[in-house]
Amino acid sequence: MSYVTIKEVAQEAEVSVPAVSQVLNNTGRISDATRQRVLDAIAKLNYIPNSAARSMRSSLTKTIGLLVPDIRNSYFASLISAVTEELSKNGYVCLIGSSGESVKGQDTFLRSLLSQRIDGTIIVPQGTISPGLKRFLETDLPVVFLDRSISGIGQDSHIPLIDSDPLPGIEKAIQSARALGHSSIGFVHGPIAESPSLKERQDVFASVAAELLGDDGAVIAEPTDALSAITGLLDRGVRTFIFGYSPDALVAIGYFRDHGLVIGKDVSMISFDDIPLFELATPAISVISQQVITMGVRGARTLLGLMRAKNSSHPGPNRAENLRIPTELIARESMVDFSADPR
Amino acid sequence: MSYVTIKEVAQEAEVSVPAVSQVLNNTGRISDATRQRVLDAIAKLNYIPNSAARSMRSSLTKTIGLLVPDIRNSYFASLISAVTEELSKNGYVCLIGSSGESVKGQDTFLRSLLSQRIDGTIIVPQGTISPGLKRFLETDLPVVFLDRSISGIGQDSHIPLIDSDPLPGIEKAIQSARALGHSSIGFVHGPIAESPSLKERQDVFASVAAELLGDDGAVIAEPTDALSAITGLLDRGVRTFIFGYSPDALVAIGYFRDHGLVIGKDVSMISFDDIPLFELATPAISVISQQVITMGVRGARTLLGLMRAKNSSHPGPNRAENLRIPTELIARESMVDFSADPR
Repeated sequence: MSYVTIKEVAQEAEVSVPAVSQVLNNTGRISDATRQRVLDAIAKLNYIPNSAARSMRSSLTKTIGLLVPDIRNSYFASLISAVTEELSKNGYVCLIGSSGESVKGQDTFLRSLLSQRIDGTIIVPQGTISPGLKRFLETDLPVVFLDRSISGIGQDSHIPLIDSDPLPGIEKAIQSARALGHSSIGFVHGPIAESPSLKERQDVFASVAAELLGDDGAVIAEPTDALSAITGLLDRGVRTFIFGYSPDALVAIGYFRDHGLVIGKDVSMISFDDIPLFELATPAISVISQQVITMGVRGARTLLGLMRAKNSSHPGPNRAENLRIPTELIARESMVDFSADPR
Repeated sequence: MSYVTIKEVAQEAEVSVPAVSQVLNNTGRISDATRQRVLDAIAKLNYIPNSAARSMRSSLTKTIGLLVPDIRNSYFASLISAVTEELSKNGYVCLIGSSGESVKGQDTFLRSLLSQRIDGTIIVPQGTISPGLKRFLETDLPVVFLDRSISGIGQDSHIPLIDSDPLPGIEKAIQSARALGHSSIGFVHGPIAESPSLKERQDVFASVAAELLGDDGAVIAEPTDALSAITGLLDRGVRTFIFGYSPDALVAIGYFRDHGLVIGKDVSMISFDDIPLFELATPAISVISQQVITMGVRGARTLLGLMRAKNSSHPGPNRAENLRIPTELIARESMVDFSADPR
């Protein structure tokens, strides 16, 4: 693994390498001020002495790192649950972290994980290849990307990606809306700048909606915050919504309720992600399910396979295939039926 | 910290201490079978060689362990968010784990945490003092209990407890129900065997309801699963519910809907925990809020104080006070108003 070196600590503290070593081993005569500078540099760089690093590399810890964008998002809570349950069956425990949907949060957690004793990591990455992610991938730790791809990492990357294929679910959603008499649909996208996977949903929607409903049938929200995106679409006359990012759908449910727009009567909606709230809402909200349990289990199994291959005395191919889980439409009561009484 | 010793590894593997040492240092002549037994014992006991353990104890890692009962429970997701945000402001990252509402899950995660490099831990504990928890508390790591107390640990424990005081919220809830003309209320308790805090809510309800509504006014559900508890109360004629554990309230919302019982018309309910689903439900559900953000922030600050005291060159009192956050009633639309038309 690519740990911080003693040389980097010496540079940061502006002392010699032997001075750092003396502080570490509590030998030699070092002034209190110098000692403090070295300790500060160690803390700042999260340096691990070689002896510890060696032991960390040596034996299996049966511990896995798991990074998700937001634990408050029920979709990721379900994903965590599926991953940890599958790993737990195999005797593994997870150290979970949240990036708070930010590259900075992701890199901070990955930096911390590097100093922990783990056998592998599952990452739901943010946007593009960041310095912290790049550094993390330079280690020889088995890693799996789950749920989201990142740009800036080639098709020939050795990191397997387990995610969902948005096409089947979006296609069924638009077909079903058309069958109910909806002639135009607005799309609200979520933080696409942070996620090529969210961007893909919007692109798939745009192309399928244009094909099935014509060019006027696909109305893409402005690239702005959720509330402005929703009110912007309402102002443009949109009354049928597909949400590519479920937290935006929750914002919409609150907005509709506060403004007297009854779902399933005044407005229609379908959201990505089969979370409990959509099932328990009145009316129940139709969803494009990513089969989150299947995805989590397959992600965990892919990592288990990579770790087995790495630690086997006869290592097989130390690579795993990418895998896409098809999305599914689960139709509930949130779509107005215009088919008997077409507008 | 109380790590596993090389002697315990030797005993587990049924070999001598020097044999373990030879496997660790890859010296001497050890048969493959013996080596495997030693490696298995190391993995099983999660043994860390002394050199690593020493470094782990030495410097600050700016990493905290955080154990919660269930990440899928939105209440704990909010608690995690509050804790991690406050710690993050102070430069700390969290390694989060879930016990899955079981003592076994708790002890497994705590065992794994012991082999990680952390500066302190916040624990939402399960039930009673378990072997894994006991062992963990024997270390000199700063620990804070959050949200739930445990039995079997005395008032004079040095572990501070930050939790909510159920009395003010439950009292307001029953007063408000009485003002709306409800003469009897059923209480659904959640997994009280796993949590003295849930048990306390039931006891507080029983005593306040008996006082305000008379002995017939307090109907406690049987100690069984959520669905049986709810149907049992319905069979006993209960139409007004207070839920001490929000996941049970979600079960009830689904059950009521599937059986044509309209909340706010046919049945009335108030639940513990101010989670998004209750606010977005139709009708919006009244809640007894535990002020989860305040609780998380105060829990994090208590731990930060303990860590500062421990690492200060002039350590102050290495103890912290317990703290109870008062619960609050947030009245919404889920209670029928019988006050104009009393039954």
